[in-house]
Amino acid sequence: MRAVGDILRLNARRFPRKPGFRFGAGSLTFEQADEMANRAANGLRRIGVNPGDRVAMLALNRLDYLPLFFGTVRTGAMSVPLNFRCSVDELAYMLDDAQVATMLVGPGFEAVALALRERVRCLEALVAIGGGPDAGPMTPLDALLAAASPEAPGTAIDEASGAVIFYTSGTTGHPKGVVLSHRSIVEGACQTALVARIRSSDTALVTVPLFHGGGLAVVSMSHLYLGAGLVIHDKADPGEALRSIAGDGITTYFGVPSQLFAMLEHPDLKDADLGSLRSLWYGAAPMPPVVLQRLQAMLPRLDFVQTYGQTETTLTACLGPEEHFSKPGATGRELPGVEIRVVDDEGREVSPGGVGEILVRRESGMIGYYGNPQQTAETIRDGWIHTGDLARIDEDRYITIVDRKKDMILSGGENIYPKEVEDVLLQHPAVAQVAVIGVPDERWGEVPKAYVVPRPAAAADAAVLEAWCMERLARYKRPRHWSFVQGLPMTATGKVRKNLLREIDRQAGEAR
Amino acid sequence: MRAVGDILRLNARRFPRKPGFRFGAGSLTFEQADEMANRAANGLRRIGVNPGDRVAMLALNRLDYLPLFFGTVRTGAMSVPLNFRCSVDELAYMLDDAQVATMLVGPGFEAVALALRERVRCLEALVAIGGGPDAGPMTPLDALLAAASPEAPGTAIDEASGAVIFYTSGTTGHPKGVVLSHRSIVEGACQTALVARIRSSDTALVTVPLFHGGGLAVVSMSHLYLGAGLVIHDKADPGEALRSIAGDGITTYFGVPSQLFAMLEHPDLKDADLGSLRSLWYGAAPMPPVVLQRLQAMLPRLDFVQTYGQTETTLTACLGPEEHFSKPGATGRELPGVEIRVVDDEGREVSPGGVGEILVRRESGMIGYYGNPQQTAETIRDGWIHTGDLARIDEDRYITIVDRKKDMILSGGENIYPKEVEDVLLQHPAVAQVAVIGVPDERWGEVPKAYVVPRPAAAADAAVLEAWCMERLARYKRPRHWSFVQGLPMTATGKVRKNLLREIDRQAGEAR
Repeated sequence: MRAVGDILRLNARRFPRKPGFRFGAGSLTFEQADEMANRAANGLRRIGVNPGDRVAMLALNRLDYLPLFFGTVRTGAMSVPLNFRCSVDELAYMLDDAQVATMLVGPGFEAVALALRERVRCLEALVAIGGGPDAGPMTPLDALLAAASPEAPGTAIDEASGAVIFYTSGTTGHPKGVVLSHRSIVEGACQTALVARIRSSDTALVTVPLFHGGGLAVVSMSHLYLGAGLVIHDKADPGEALRSIAGDGITTYFGVPSQLFAMLEHPDLKDADLGSLRSLWYGAAPMPPVVLQRLQAMLPRLDFVQTYGQTETTLTACLGPEEHFSKPGATGRELPGVEIRVVDDEGREVSPGGVGEILVRRESGMIGYYGNPQQTAETIRDGWIHTGDLARIDEDRYITIVDRKKDMILSGGENIYPKEVEDVLLQHPAVAQVAVIGVPDERWGEVPKAYVVPRPAAAADAAVLEAWCMERLARYKRPRHWSFVQGLPMTATGKVRKNLLREIDRQAGEAR
Repeated sequence: MRAVGDILRLNARRFPRKPGFRFGAGSLTFEQADEMANRAANGLRRIGVNPGDRVAMLALNRLDYLPLFFGTVRTGAMSVPLNFRCSVDELAYMLDDAQVATMLVGPGFEAVALALRERVRCLEALVAIGGGPDAGPMTPLDALLAAASPEAPGTAIDEASGAVIFYTSGTTGHPKGVVLSHRSIVEGACQTALVARIRSSDTALVTVPLFHGGGLAVVSMSHLYLGAGLVIHDKADPGEALRSIAGDGITTYFGVPSQLFAMLEHPDLKDADLGSLRSLWYGAAPMPPVVLQRLQAMLPRLDFVQTYGQTETTLTACLGPEEHFSKPGATGRELPGVEIRVVDDEGREVSPGGVGEILVRRESGMIGYYGNPQQTAETIRDGWIHTGDLARIDEDRYITIVDRKKDMILSGGENIYPKEVEDVLLQHPAVAQVAVIGVPDERWGEVPKAYVVPRPAAAADAAVLEAWCMERLARYKRPRHWSFVQGLPMTATGKVRKNLLREIDRQAGEAR
């Protein structure tokens, strides 16, 4: 298997009549999906897509999302799945950055797509996935597929060439286009399936967005590599997830911690039948220990798998089922076939117990940032991807993520890891969410400031939380400023956008 | 991970103090084994081994067998593990065929090695693994290692280059040197670990010979890929295997069917504690259904995994734990990442229910036969490895091996698959082993002849077995000739050498 498109092709041979993709009441067998992918590939070729081109996808998760992705990569072009939560400005930036000429447009995004075509010079062809009256001047996908051959396009694919460009969620600066090769995706799928112990007979619930590396490359491709089936939702609604687990016979579920927390808090949980579940993965954001404890108490026989990775590195480390008990609190250990180094500012590996930046070396990491050799060279040095994540490493090479290197607060010569402060505040019963950032301070350089989202009907004020911190944190780590808010700005994958908080704080400071 | 040597290197990083290799009372941690491999690589370089060279290994399974293998491939040379059961003539053929200049010689093989050096012109350097007085004029390994640096040799390895040459057991014609690349071994290890559901925490019992692809590439490398530990025996003694399972905490065991049968028949079985076992693999030869039934009845909670592959294809298909119940009797289904076609003599895929030759396409198959482009071109056509194995394929793409294409008997225009006849005879209580071959016949072209090994104290004669077959086989399939023997000529991996039986029969016919 050399190309991403082979993952679906081989499933169509091995499991032709299996409903590999399900969405709502609809389903596609692997054979049907494979034919759709061939038709999409041939149709895209006919409207001018050539090997090496970029084809964007702007749509919610849907039944044909992955078949159309496979169709795109079978042309030899790179798929650029776009975050539909982004603003028109952000989308325009990405389309221009990747020099996208063709975009597949899901229902509801027609107006945005037409606005983007006005603004983005390179964008020419729009294909309306839904068709119908809103399609307007766009090419209807249905007609494109119907007119195309169902046979494999037969395009030779170089496994080292780019298959997909994921734009990073942009917690800092402009989004960057991470290029993963065909080989990256295929090898990463096998390695992920191995550590997550996926089986051909599994059925995965996919509520994470498919435009994201976590949803597409990590969760979907690892299951599809083995021929397991996917049940796809277009939003992470905890009630629907609970119903789907029982109704669709879900065996594996990947949830970001906030989704799993919402499931735990949902009124339907008490009557839900979760008996089909075999394993629960979580990752993409820190898991509050109390949430994990509640999940484990409720589902003691499940395999729990914590994942760690970045779009740039793909899945890099994991904490497997048994390790949840032998190494509680750790993020995980490097996957087989993956090398991790935790290094200090001089690039020397830190001793066990020390904190440093995680560097990753593997075959299935990114090729680089699309059209950005300078940023690529800054991130991949001597073959090592510099993640910007800080971790503590122990004597058994388990890593525990401490924080983003860029989020670290330097206060009076001391390092403060905001995550440590946040973890303390999250344990307070009145706190639903919290983000701690460093803000300028004349005396200390920087001091911590906490943005707190209180729980409904809870009495949280600065005095109460200051007292809470006083018992639990060294003086220099305690927040000096407090802001109580209704919500925090989040990325599509559940990370707090701290750069935006810092920007808000900076502007507020200037206004004062 | 690009090179085979990285498998051990990464384990030394991840699990430095884990006893990755155990043999008798001895053990090596991954860190110790990694250092030994570095010393072996540097030592071999110093005595003239260069990238691309071939370095043979003639030894029983032993503690340092795999560390020395890793050391060899870290030089960039190819390892040629030799079947120690072969005759001097056969070994001389292989050494000359692979143009081996350097050979590692295990204890007990010193005299053979010196005789080989006399005969084989290219063979120059002999390294005595055991050292001691028998080493004679050979270089003692201990001294070579002691004088060498423990640091990684730093040789750049092309992942597409050959890492190992396995000589096929030669059921037909001269042995052929199957070259597997670094990438073949590494990718195959990941794929095998996935379908065999190996975990880092596993401990494997290795009683199959390490000179064979099954023992080295399939069983050992798949476990080592994940950092699982190996307990190595130098023979497949059923009593010792039973003791080791309890004593060493074995969780996974690969046995060829004859070994598993011997374990079932062993008097120590009734008192053996097999509670640590988690999975049992079998393969390399057909598994008699009665043996499998007894194993499953005795160990109902185990994961049973049947494997199918050839040295040329590496592990190609398997029958996983659940499938033993849903598809009893089948050999298995193609692994993820592997493509199988079952084709007729014109190369067309046969319909479900039909029989044809198995063709295999995958990234991790052989590069080719060493120094034999003609045979390579006959075997790999359009990227498909022609296995010479005949199989029936069902509507779910499960294959059931029917027989070797070369062993098929053509009798009066009908195809007879000897294995079908053998399976019927094996069910007779007086039959311990049986092999059926085609022998020339004036009227029918060929007719079946059975070589029967009777059970101790059992009364087996031709009349009894003819009556048995009459109830169970069509007339044309029944053996016309019978030979009752004490044993059958076997290959190192438990296959009957039918070419030798045919040769014996031919010579006997000429003598008559």
